[in-house]
Amino acid sequence: MKKVAGVVIAQNKANTPLNILVVGLGLIGGSFAASLRECGENFHLMGFDLSGENIEKAVSLGIVAEGCGDFESAVSRADVIQLSVPMLAMPTVLEQLNGLDLAGKVMTDVGSCKGSLIQAARELFGRVPENLVPGHPIAGSEKSGVTAAKAGLFKNHKVILTPLENTDPEALSLVRYLWYCCGAQVNVMDVQRHDEVLAMTSHLPHLLAFSLVDTLAGNPEHQDIFRYAAGGFRDFTRIAGSDPIMWHDIAMGNSEAILASLDRFSEGLAQLRQAIVEKDSQEVLATFERARSARQHFASMLERRASMAAFDENQ
Amino acid sequence: MKKVAGVVIAQNKANTPLNILVVGLGLIGGSFAASLRECGENFHLMGFDLSGENIEKAVSLGIVAEGCGDFESAVSRADVIQLSVPMLAMPTVLEQLNGLDLAGKVMTDVGSCKGSLIQAARELFGRVPENLVPGHPIAGSEKSGVTAAKAGLFKNHKVILTPLENTDPEALSLVRYLWYCCGAQVNVMDVQRHDEVLAMTSHLPHLLAFSLVDTLAGNPEHQDIFRYAAGGFRDFTRIAGSDPIMWHDIAMGNSEAILASLDRFSEGLAQLRQAIVEKDSQEVLATFERARSARQHFASMLERRASMAAFDENQ
Repeated sequence: MKKVAGVVIAQNKANTPLNILVVGLGLIGGSFAASLRECGENFHLMGFDLSGENIEKAVSLGIVAEGCGDFESAVSRADVIQLSVPMLAMPTVLEQLNGLDLAGKVMTDVGSCKGSLIQAARELFGRVPENLVPGHPIAGSEKSGVTAAKAGLFKNHKVILTPLENTDPEALSLVRYLWYCCGAQVNVMDVQRHDEVLAMTSHLPHLLAFSLVDTLAGNPEHQDIFRYAAGGFRDFTRIAGSDPIMWHDIAMGNSEAILASLDRFSEGLAQLRQAIVEKDSQEVLATFERARSARQHFASMLERRASMAAFDENQ
Repeated sequence: MKKVAGVVIAQNKANTPLNILVVGLGLIGGSFAASLRECGENFHLMGFDLSGENIEKAVSLGIVAEGCGDFESAVSRADVIQLSVPMLAMPTVLEQLNGLDLAGKVMTDVGSCKGSLIQAARELFGRVPENLVPGHPIAGSEKSGVTAAKAGLFKNHKVILTPLENTDPEALSLVRYLWYCCGAQVNVMDVQRHDEVLAMTSHLPHLLAFSLVDTLAGNPEHQDIFRYAAGGFRDFTRIAGSDPIMWHDIAMGNSEAILASLDRFSEGLAQLRQAIVEKDSQEVLATFERARSARQHFASMLERRASMAAFDENQ
């Protein structure tokens, strides 16, 4: 494995394993644990979940080395606590953590919105703890649950960390290193910027897909409608198959940025509608051409990223 | 090859080839020709295009057997004329056909909107000719042009034919048979119903994707936005990479049904927006759940269709 300059914490711990507790054994938490178990470092993966069945599955699937039934004792033994519960459950977990001794421990999370986590932490702890590193892996699937978890889910995917001014640099380094061990590309970003970018590229598209499919399904002849839908529709609506609870939490947790981007989108859509009403050929064509050119630019950016990742792997 | 009950026209012609002229050698016209060349029937595929270069490519790629430089003489020798020009060019082609002797010939087309074709035909010919069978293969690609054409593009895809009351049943049977030879599944549908269903499942999603990508691209920081976009965004916006001219023609040609479905969508989206504003958890969750369940139903319908097609092939 390659060394990351400046990251020494994990190496210092080489002789005693780093105890990593994953709280919430779903797709993301489970995949984080599974990736770290496979990376070859001296990590001890512990898993806690409200569902005892999930803990058992995670152990039997080899996702964690140890299933923990008791939250407090698990936290007391952990060096790192990864919070991967549904976003709206985060305040409850933070509240439980608040009563415990967290000195010397690093906390991080995987929530899709960072502003709401930080607000919850500020309300509960009085301030955002220095040892809390807010994080968000940009990877997922329409599948959910621990049985969908897999090592490699984050490989060549981006992970955004949004430290605050008071965040402990060593805590940041350690979390960055753990994601590096998962094969992810870590970027650091301002909290608000993160929430705006994600609203536009992820949260809004999900809302549009959910809303479109729901509208079509509400049509009395929806059976017929779906029957004649083709591949483009399948791709366009795939994300409407995502976990409703997770996306409900995101819609609620990042509502401000989502509403802002939704309104910007609606404005553009209204212009396109008007151009169609007015039979303004030039405007309709220009909109589609700008979109295609941006889409092609985006596609080639993704391809470049993929081929760079392949190059890295061959070094 | 299996026999289709009631279709005898092609068999009657077994000793002399059926001359099939494809007008417009793009992705769809080219793939239609290529599929028919490969099907094993006694078809002679002729190709006409405004671009001499396209004709040359179609011949050298083996897509047509004969490239035709002269429209009139090609039409005079054709038994079947497949119109696969961009939709807004259709009236011009119909006008050119109007002066020629079309007795005993069958005409059909591949346009994505059927109402506008029928209207154009009615205006030019005084009525919709009995030997014109409006058609629409529901298959495509973000790629376009004759070099993207391929035999098999329509295999197991749906083709909708929208005959009118006065359409010659033998002409309908022949067109249906040709699509059968391409491996397609042919359905017959009312013109207006076709345009409504396609507006909802294809035209509207394309408009939404174009509009979203255009709005994002208009953001001064769009480089950064696209950089953090993930797989869901890629799938959701793939159709924004489609041919702008083709989609311009569709937006113009099916504007009535598109605007109606856009307004229904906007209504649903406004309700979802309101639910987020009012923090109405129940309504947001219910919308997402309805959508996911409809999406899963649609996905399993597609899977069933694919496995039935695989079963057919093994018979």
